[in-house]
Amino acid sequence: SITIENKECGITEFVGTAIGDTIGLVIANVDYNLHEFMKLDKKFRSIGIIGGRTGAGPQIMAADEAVKATNTEIIAIELPRDTKGGAGHGSLIIFGAEDVSDARRAVEVALDELGRTFGDVYANEAGHLEFQYTARASYACNKAFKAPIGKAFGLIVGAPAAIGVLMADTAVKAANVEVIGYASPGNGTSFTNEAILFISGDSGAVRQSLIAAREIGKPLLEALGGKAPSLTQPYI
Amino acid sequence: SITIENKECGITEFVGTAIGDTIGLVIANVDYNLHEFMKLDKKFRSIGIIGGRTGAGPQIMAADEAVKATNTEIIAIELPRDTKGGAGHGSLIIFGAEDVSDARRAVEVALDELGRTFGDVYANEAGHLEFQYTARASYACNKAFKAPIGKAFGLIVGAPAAIGVLMADTAVKAANVEVIGYASPGNGTSFTNEAILFISGDSGAVRQSLIAAREIGKPLLEALGGKAPSLTQPYI
Amino acid sequence: SITIENKECGITEFVGTAIGDTIGLVIANVDYNLHEFMKLDKKFRSIGIIGGRTGAGPQIMAADEAVKATNTEIIAIELPRDTKGGAGHGSLIIFGAEDVSDARRAVEVALDELGRTFGDVYANEAGHLEFQYTARASYACNKAFKAPIGKAFGLIVGAPAAIGVLMADTAVKAANVEVIGYASPGNGTSFTNEAILFISGDSGAVRQSLIAAREIGKPLLEALGGKAPSLTQPYI
Repeated sequence: SITIENKECGITEFVGTAIGDTIGLVIANVDYNLHEFMKLDKKFRSIGIIGGRTGAGPQIMAADEAVKATNTEIIAIELPRDTKGGAGHGSLIIFGAEDVSDARRAVEVALDELGRTFGDVYANEAGHLEFQYTARASYACNKAFKAPIGKAFGLIVGAPAAIGVLMADTAVKAANVEVIGYASPGNGTSFTNEAILFISGDSGAVRQSLIAAREIGKPLLEALGGKAPSLTQPYI
Repeated sequence: SITIENKECGITEFVGTAIGDTIGLVIANVDYNLHEFMKLDKKFRSIGIIGGRTGAGPQIMAADEAVKATNTEIIAIELPRDTKGGAGHGSLIIFGAEDVSDARRAVEVALDELGRTFGDVYANEAGHLEFQYTARASYACNKAFKAPIGKAFGLIVGAPAAIGVLMADTAVKAANVEVIGYASPGNGTSFTNEAILFISGDSGAVRQSLIAAREIGKPLLEALGGKAPSLTQPYI
Repeated sequence: SITIENKECGITEFVGTAIGDTIGLVIANVDYNLHEFMKLDKKFRSIGIIGGRTGAGPQIMAADEAVKATNTEIIAIELPRDTKGGAGHGSLIIFGAEDVSDARRAVEVALDELGRTFGDVYANEAGHLEFQYTARASYACNKAFKAPIGKAFGLIVGAPAAIGVLMADTAVKAANVEVIGYASPGNGTSFTNEAILFISGDSGAVRQSLIAAREIGKPLLEALGGKAPSLTQPYI
């Protein structure tokens, strides 16, 4: 994979690293006492951990695929204000499993997906845009975004937030989608400089909305800060 | 103007860009459904949007002038934790109008004012100071800072917050002003590293307070991080 | 001292600067009106102020020593989301005193301690680790971390937060310590990208926990971002 860099570091719990300063770890038996302080359900002995400095959407979408592919559950998603001086979030995602091999597998799948899920992130010195799509939302999208499970889901992020506001309006006018939610610097983000739209519906309509938002957002971000290329390869 | 850069980007909704990675946009008819998610009053069909990565005070003061000069209202002011690795806020400000030409005019006026309102922002690698003054506060200052409408208003910001604490004390001792509010990293900011004082009163007294604060703040910030010049031209 | 740089800046209230873009200031007689807005107890005429762009733990531990050594109290600790594009907090700490010479002395002691308390901060481009230890916690540790006064106390911070989660688990398994608290991006931090463990107990056990956490955290942070040296000199 282009994204996982399996640097050996001699730690059993280390799984790998990926784009966005993302690290993947596992704990076979979380300390019983710590479960309570971390507010984790004690039924999960083993946990998998994905955390990055840059990106929340990409890691959550990657975790969504990991949950579909493995015998794990999403037990925590937390969103720091990060991106290393950028406008957005970082991420901390915890998978619960009864067996450590399941937790490790979930982390591996998620790290491996990140190359793709950073594909519709476009950034320059002035800000970033992010678009995410899945034909079938699972438990990570549900927990983080209230996406209806099993339905097509789309995510539209613009930073600075002003661009996100216009993209949101463009997206809902472009196709017959259901708005699930809207987040902005003062409501629903960790004070990021982003406006974010969450949409659900028919898969063709969701894609059409995403593409319309991207078409208006990219020239705006580029008017502000110059060329804003994909961080990897667009997938939508 | 020195601040608006009318880069053509082929988008009808684009108005211009200005200092602070600020972008100005308009939407002629906000989607009816989105109004609710954005918690906007549905009586405004058209909105103007100003949003920047760096600066909240400068954009709010600029919006205050825009509201005075046009047939618009301030319907939202949100303050992300931003400044691109700096110590302060970014901004998202939304004007409401019945007609898109009014919304566009408000955005134009605001972008055009930013050159001035960044004039008493002083910055170096260690932090920043900001001073704002208006002889007659209007609806943006009222919404953001609870400034009494029609009265002189002053804003004093120091970052790191320690400098703001000392400037606040100096300002209230320097002249007979009324303290409207005080904000700090844990109270009233979006976790910025700023202490902020909001003052009102007689216009001469407000100016005297601002100047006293600036005179003590500047050598302190410079002791920490070297020369801290104005970002444009001081106006107070 | 290696940390205090007594740049003359001609301001009576200026005490000095130190690592972390930290500045130390005093106010002999805080304005009576401002006390209320700052939510300070009016019994303290004089205050000492320590504030930095980078670091909360180091400044709080330094303040803890200052309180032990002087006739002052800790009256406010606020934690901005800062570190200049890094993953952690900045700090604003206010000492109260009846006499300005006591306030000044507390600020001097705190600035002087910072060289030591940054010693177990390890950082690279991807994040940071922090470890703090005191054999006898005092009022700053109590106010900020709920550390039992007079007992040994330890602090473990990992950023990105994923590394902190694993260090927390390692620490509690390494020795018989009492967990006082746990903070993460969404609970108990100012949306930093950190997981933080607070421990108390027998001084040998606390040290053993800290060392075990450091031994697992350092290779992980280095797998993500290369060499992560101490910012000054390790003291634990």
